[in-house]
Amino acid sequence: MKACGVIVEYNPFHNGHRYHLQQAREQTGADVVVAVMSGNFLQRGEPAIVDKWTRAEMALLQGADLVIELPFAYAVQSADYFAAGAVKLLQALQVESLVFGTDVKETVDYQGFGAFVANHQAEIDTRYQAMRNNGQSYPQQMTALFRELLGLPLDFSSPNHILGLSYAKENAKYSQPMTLIPIHREQAGYHDEMIKGTIASATAIRKGLEAGTDVALTMPKTSWGLLQTQPLISWQNFWPLLRYQLLVQTPSDLRRIYQMTEGIEYRLQAAAEKAETFAAFIEAVKTKRYTWTRLQRLCCYILGQVTENEIQGTWQNTFIHVLGFTSKGQQFLKERKKTADLPILTRIGRDTSNFSLDEKISHLYQLGSPKISEQVYGRFPLQR
Amino acid sequence: MKACGVIVEYNPFHNGHRYHLQQAREQTGADVVVAVMSGNFLQRGEPAIVDKWTRAEMALLQGADLVIELPFAYAVQSADYFAAGAVKLLQALQVESLVFGTDVKETVDYQGFGAFVANHQAEIDTRYQAMRNNGQSYPQQMTALFRELLGLPLDFSSPNHILGLSYAKENAKYSQPMTLIPIHREQAGYHDEMIKGTIASATAIRKGLEAGTDVALTMPKTSWGLLQTQPLISWQNFWPLLRYQLLVQTPSDLRRIYQMTEGIEYRLQAAAEKAETFAAFIEAVKTKRYTWTRLQRLCCYILGQVTENEIQGTWQNTFIHVLGFTSKGQQFLKERKKTADLPILTRIGRDTSNFSLDEKISHLYQLGSPKISEQVYGRFPLQR
Repeated sequence: MKACGVIVEYNPFHNGHRYHLQQAREQTGADVVVAVMSGNFLQRGEPAIVDKWTRAEMALLQGADLVIELPFAYAVQSADYFAAGAVKLLQALQVESLVFGTDVKETVDYQGFGAFVANHQAEIDTRYQAMRNNGQSYPQQMTALFRELLGLPLDFSSPNHILGLSYAKENAKYSQPMTLIPIHREQAGYHDEMIKGTIASATAIRKGLEAGTDVALTMPKTSWGLLQTQPLISWQNFWPLLRYQLLVQTPSDLRRIYQMTEGIEYRLQAAAEKAETFAAFIEAVKTKRYTWTRLQRLCCYILGQVTENEIQGTWQNTFIHVLGFTSKGQQFLKERKKTADLPILTRIGRDTSNFSLDEKISHLYQLGSPKISEQVYGRFPLQR
Repeated sequence: MKACGVIVEYNPFHNGHRYHLQQAREQTGADVVVAVMSGNFLQRGEPAIVDKWTRAEMALLQGADLVIELPFAYAVQSADYFAAGAVKLLQALQVESLVFGTDVKETVDYQGFGAFVANHQAEIDTRYQAMRNNGQSYPQQMTALFRELLGLPLDFSSPNHILGLSYAKENAKYSQPMTLIPIHREQAGYHDEMIKGTIASATAIRKGLEAGTDVALTMPKTSWGLLQTQPLISWQNFWPLLRYQLLVQTPSDLRRIYQMTEGIEYRLQAAAEKAETFAAFIEAVKTKRYTWTRLQRLCCYILGQVTENEIQGTWQNTFIHVLGFTSKGQQFLKERKKTADLPILTRIGRDTSNFSLDEKISHLYQLGSPKISEQVYGRFPLQR
């Protein structure tokens, strides 16, 4: 069987995602589409609007054949780590190609870029070290660095494009890299917040849902229907818990948390005391160095009391947790299981090793609302 | 000026408490009544139904002249520690007598009992060690021990009587013990849950309030009026925070908490996972050894992430935090300040040393409802 991979969050699943899945199948001629999806907390450090099982079901009903979970230690991270985890899972299942969305208009040779980076890592590192702390943002530094090295105008300001470049870098490290196939996103950029017709970004859809706008036309009917069955979750649901944790812990307790550095714990505590909402809290803490996204990720780590050891634990013992499959996806999994060099988990018991961080985090998500269903124990892969 | 002391919780202030204050003044002829009151968390390990400032005001409007706060490290404790803290504060202010309620019908020579214990501590300790782990409850053991030693039928099953005996023991340790004056509680026992006429126990009143029964007649009008201005708080308000903390911490994190011993952390975590309410949670954990009250206290320590060091810190550097006074109370405080051997705090700043545990705990109470007013910073003693 021939497989193509997609790396997704589906927060929530919309018409753009359906188009992406259709293109993946058409352009690769693959028998199965494998989606690596973030779990209950997402790359930008946010709780998912609906839980991972519901989002996996949305995907299975619209063209994905196998949905596997990107572990928390890779998912709630900057693009490089996110990409490293997702590519690792797809490589373990020997997926032949990777189809991803991009919003830059120029044709970019991702495969060539990845190979170049893989062959020039030392030089890139040296140049990057030289420009660190030059006052520019990371995207600005990266753009300048690759303009010098490659003479190419690579845009590091678009999140989707950065992810594409990160996939390319990671993919090139493997002996049998996947074929990289960028799909141009037609009508809606990642950050676009306007709803125009039937294509809108997930950000725009979430804002629309929050504001009570009718966004039904921007999603497949199956996704819209599933969305109606669930409570809609945002950081505000977890703000009382996060705030409590920030107020009750000592600064030295907080320093045990992953990525808690440079005295940020004091700023967080002072802001938590006063802020009534999560948004007001982040607004009070953010600086040029501590961006909104970086702070949101840090808040995920605080909420989950995540330590460096736990993150390293996942990195060193990565697993493939199956959220769901179609019959073709199940057949594919059975076939590739024989050669997969990572353990495949289809059911989480209370004694499943390796999974403890994701178990804690998934479970934690349930505290966002009493209406969220059991996320961990006794859950088998969805079959569609 | 001549002062008498009372040791109270006022949860909430009711007609029985008013009677107690009247009797205290009448029987001692004191110029001022000094009330040592638990703060926002109480002896039995519960959050107070309304905050400490509101409860202090209730007391000042009904006959107390000075209300001082019993620090958390003494307040949320078994009778002996509770009594040790309260007597220590009254002794520091050189209060001449202590008036306390009792619900045993026999006349008990508390003063004599205290003196006896002070002079026979070694013998009592030896006998107690011998009967430890004999399968009897602590009250049963104490009753048997003193029947043997004194030939007296001291009843250790009534919480108020136990407190009286504890006051007597502590008081006898000082070179100038206070005169002990027990007041017989006429119509309502500590645990009575029926409302009959105008006298009811605080427990009965809280149950009545929860059930929506009209309990207005059981309280002075001033107390009833103040109660209407506040959100009514119970453990259920803090259950989401406690539950979150129990689910997110590792067993080894939990073992850093004061009084977390003997593997109880595992039982607590397992129960927190399933229980929907605080009551169901305690019901699932409690055993003969871990009684409801003991577990509630442990829950206060978990909620506040309280460590042995913090408790010891208060014990070693005890302070007198003033919640409010009448003009006579203020005059008395000014007079006794000169000779008091404990620091007197009238305002908590962010840099007030010694107060950090109480600062944390008082602040934490505000998370119970957005309607609770500022508990710590910028608060001066109430003046009535």
